[in-house]
Amino acid sequence: MAYTHHNNELNLTHLGQSVHLKGWVARKRNLGGLIFIDLRDRFGITQLLVQPGHKSYDIASSLKSEYVIDVTGVVIARESINPNMGTGEIEVNIDELKVLNIAETPPIGITNEDTSLEDTRLKYRYLDLRRPIMQNYMLKRAQITQAVREALLQEGFNEFETPILGKSTPEGARDFLVPSRLYAGEFYALPQSPQIYKQLYMVAGFEKYFQIARCFRDEDLRADRQLEFTQVDIETSFLSEVEIQSMIERVLAHTFKKVLNVEVQLPIERMSFDKAMSLYGSDKPDLRFGMLIKDLNPLFDTYQIPFLASKIIRGFVVPNGASLSRKELDAFTSIVKKNHGESLAFLKVLNHELSGSLLKNIHNPAEFITNAHLTENDLLLIIAGKDYESASKAAGALRKELGDYLKLASDDDYRFVWIIDWPLFDVNDDGSLTAAHHPFTSPKEADKGLLATNPKLCRAQAYDIVLNGYELGGGSVRIHESHIQQQMFEAIGLSKEIIEERFGFLVGALKYGTPPHGGLALGLDRLVMLMTHTKNIKDVIAFPKTQSARDLMMQAPSSVADEQLTELNLIVKK
Amino acid sequence: MAYTHHNNELNLTHLGQSVHLKGWVARKRNLGGLIFIDLRDRFGITQLLVQPGHKSYDIASSLKSEYVIDVTGVVIARESINPNMGTGEIEVNIDELKVLNIAETPPIGITNEDTSLEDTRLKYRYLDLRRPIMQNYMLKRAQITQAVREALLQEGFNEFETPILGKSTPEGARDFLVPSRLYAGEFYALPQSPQIYKQLYMVAGFEKYFQIARCFRDEDLRADRQLEFTQVDIETSFLSEVEIQSMIERVLAHTFKKVLNVEVQLPIERMSFDKAMSLYGSDKPDLRFGMLIKDLNPLFDTYQIPFLASKIIRGFVVPNGASLSRKELDAFTSIVKKNHGESLAFLKVLNHELSGSLLKNIHNPAEFITNAHLTENDLLLIIAGKDYESASKAAGALRKELGDYLKLASDDDYRFVWIIDWPLFDVNDDGSLTAAHHPFTSPKEADKGLLATNPKLCRAQAYDIVLNGYELGGGSVRIHESHIQQQMFEAIGLSKEIIEERFGFLVGALKYGTPPHGGLALGLDRLVMLMTHTKNIKDVIAFPKTQSARDLMMQAPSSVADEQLTELNLIVKK
Repeated sequence: MAYTHHNNELNLTHLGQSVHLKGWVARKRNLGGLIFIDLRDRFGITQLLVQPGHKSYDIASSLKSEYVIDVTGVVIARESINPNMGTGEIEVNIDELKVLNIAETPPIGITNEDTSLEDTRLKYRYLDLRRPIMQNYMLKRAQITQAVREALLQEGFNEFETPILGKSTPEGARDFLVPSRLYAGEFYALPQSPQIYKQLYMVAGFEKYFQIARCFRDEDLRADRQLEFTQVDIETSFLSEVEIQSMIERVLAHTFKKVLNVEVQLPIERMSFDKAMSLYGSDKPDLRFGMLIKDLNPLFDTYQIPFLASKIIRGFVVPNGASLSRKELDAFTSIVKKNHGESLAFLKVLNHELSGSLLKNIHNPAEFITNAHLTENDLLLIIAGKDYESASKAAGALRKELGDYLKLASDDDYRFVWIIDWPLFDVNDDGSLTAAHHPFTSPKEADKGLLATNPKLCRAQAYDIVLNGYELGGGSVRIHESHIQQQMFEAIGLSKEIIEERFGFLVGALKYGTPPHGGLALGLDRLVMLMTHTKNIKDVIAFPKTQSARDLMMQAPSSVADEQLTELNLIVKK
Repeated sequence: MAYTHHNNELNLTHLGQSVHLKGWVARKRNLGGLIFIDLRDRFGITQLLVQPGHKSYDIASSLKSEYVIDVTGVVIARESINPNMGTGEIEVNIDELKVLNIAETPPIGITNEDTSLEDTRLKYRYLDLRRPIMQNYMLKRAQITQAVREALLQEGFNEFETPILGKSTPEGARDFLVPSRLYAGEFYALPQSPQIYKQLYMVAGFEKYFQIARCFRDEDLRADRQLEFTQVDIETSFLSEVEIQSMIERVLAHTFKKVLNVEVQLPIERMSFDKAMSLYGSDKPDLRFGMLIKDLNPLFDTYQIPFLASKIIRGFVVPNGASLSRKELDAFTSIVKKNHGESLAFLKVLNHELSGSLLKNIHNPAEFITNAHLTENDLLLIIAGKDYESASKAAGALRKELGDYLKLASDDDYRFVWIIDWPLFDVNDDGSLTAAHHPFTSPKEADKGLLATNPKLCRAQAYDIVLNGYELGGGSVRIHESHIQQQMFEAIGLSKEIIEERFGFLVGALKYGTPPHGGLALGLDRLVMLMTHTKNIKDVIAFPKTQSARDLMMQAPSSVADEQLTELNLIVKK
């Protein structure tokens, strides 16, 4: 047998037992001739003891960090108990010690406290992943994935695969292309999501599909984006918007219970897109703290403040915010501007006195305090924008930033909300329309008639699930009627030829008895980040790319042999 | 609620209940004014009944095949029971009937008996997949995948992901390339397998990895090959060859029990590569039938047959084969030649008389019958080749063909065998060496010293699991020592520069305390094919490519917009 125990298992109940362990030398100390070794595996650490004069003493002396060893010995009680260690009451008195592999001094420290640069950690990712915190991210990721799967199987879903080599349909993000060797000048494309395939599974009558699916977007990377990412992709036939949401809620509740022992209160609150924008200035509101946004035009109308004239004014009260310094407030101005707000002003109540940037414009401060419902230590932040949307979004961005800055929310507090009743289209500056989600999203039943006549008024059967200010996933009921799909494509300006070329098979498929269907995709990387409390997506992906889209360990992308390009009929432009 | 029952559920215990069903119109008949509808979903069929004069009668009359409908009604007993149907004792007397979607006449029949050409079925794959036999393939695939996963989780494995955008390492099959937009002239490559990543998971200390992994090979397609395929990818640290095999056996036994209720007898027989070639002329022997191959040189040495002189002669006895016609035997000759054998001769015993192509060379037929241990109705097939390997392989190919032709084996008989003790290298005609499996396979412990001195004598710690004549999967204990890996690369002729460029990170990783490790990959598509008794890999893949590497439904690959190529710095050669 390879080993009798992992390194987290032994305790006083094993006293006197012969055991066989394997693992890595995490630490070695020589105390008055006694050699102590911390033996590590992914489960934990066990202390080994080698007595002076023992036949393995010389080998033990020669061990270095990260050597891989195989030991047998007897469990004995420790003289000095370590209460911080699961195995802290025992140690193993070595009988046989064998070196399975040696190790050079690793270029990064195998501890949570290691402070190597991220690029170094990524280059030596196989060592970085030995650090206990990284092991935890990866194991949690596996557990979360399996818990989601378990819940979906329980709900009667089947896990089905879809192709990675598909067809390029340039809309939304940029496709990764894969040159075909057999057809010069033709390309496969990697899927941005299995959207169309999962709908075809519904057309084919499979009724309940899911897949832990790899998706690809050739977009410039942000801190929370990767070229390839994983989504829990779900589709079902015959269910309504609300029925789909309820099913997803049960899946999330199961996952949080199973992995974190956290109870998610069901049903999850539903909030319209309009209400979210109004109260939170965001379509992904963080409900863990207050500071709800209000319309401030009524309050300031009476004051005739020149630079607020003809602006939309929105804002919110920061309780106990009056102590924030001018410098801190100035930093918030740049957040407002970055988010397309025009200006940030403030007023605060300290010692029952009003003060702040607008004070000179307020002719009756005491009355203002009353009208604005301010109390001692309140800070009122006043954001002006050219229209309702920009003022709201700027206020929302500032609210979120302040929530972080003032630590108003705990990572252990999980506040879910469904955002519903979305517009079907975004209206571009030139008046043209883009599908707000994707062009397979169904209008609300009542709005289907508008699609051909006044599409921009259509609301969508779409829903996002939001957790603590992050979009965890989005979905919709899809279009299942061929003529509605045709109208949808026309509304976003696709010509009949383009529709036929790109989506001909889909419009065709809808003609042969497609059931009503809908679904959702959960971002697995994001879900794992939120459940493990990291803000860095690379922490939850074993072998990520850098923000400049490189794999520093494998050195990819890389140049390839000329023959490979010749076979693909390609020339690289100089 | 969307529905109360699936269409396989109702029986006499539901009599009088109001039910709500959804599905597709599989068939509609009008018998003396009564309208009968077979309502289909992926679970089964329920018969609906609409009475003359009922408010839904006109809608019912207008229904066509593949319309999607929503019905409520009451379960009643059938007048004429259909014993071939799970729901054959009842029907549902319709109360409400709603059309959810209409359907044009489908271009292929939604029945198992449909005889459309494969290309038509692939173009309308979403309809082809509605056929019950295809539904069964897909559902079995999902069940098999989940059963394998369940067993591996039970064994303490974690499911971990690996990147799809990796690095091109041109050896083995041809890579699919993905042009990088940010780095002109550089490419990612799709993985032929996660081999290196799973080894790095072991380096990182995760100890037990698996993944249902998508793999890619840009090779010309055969009937049982696709551009992308799925493997159950497994790797573990600290286990020996035999321990890994035992673990895989438990996984297979669990899967066959769970999905097919078939007991796999453990342990699975182990057979050396040499023995398999000797007795079966194949490294994937089908053990379901006999006809073991023998050396025939000793038997024929005394007869001095000119065209067999200086040949290696191997062959086997076909019991009751004497009745095979000359024409049938001639067809077998072409199989022998196609498999690099030189000639096929035969002798048979009918009415205790020897006859056959070699009879004129046999001076004492009765003695020959005795020496060759032939009995009445036996057919002795005699294959000559230029060397032992080609004679064996030709005999093996003929044995396999005859097994099929004579239906000696049942698809329901599952005979597993491990093929072990493989050579580490294949020797090319010019004397150079190629890794027989892949260059990460470890030599046998006893042969490690030979690697630098006489590598072609090395045997490998490699093993294939074979089922009914098909390779289900292969694996090995890997090289975990950096200097052995370096010697391996050198043995197959890689220069120091190439080793550094392609595998530098791996040779590096092995220096920092890599545990002994090994694993195996099971071909999931092949496993599903064998468990569902189909010979066509496309049957077990929802959206496959044709043998000419096209997706006929989506029309991929396809040309792309010039701007896409410009962004990628690529020009297509005219």
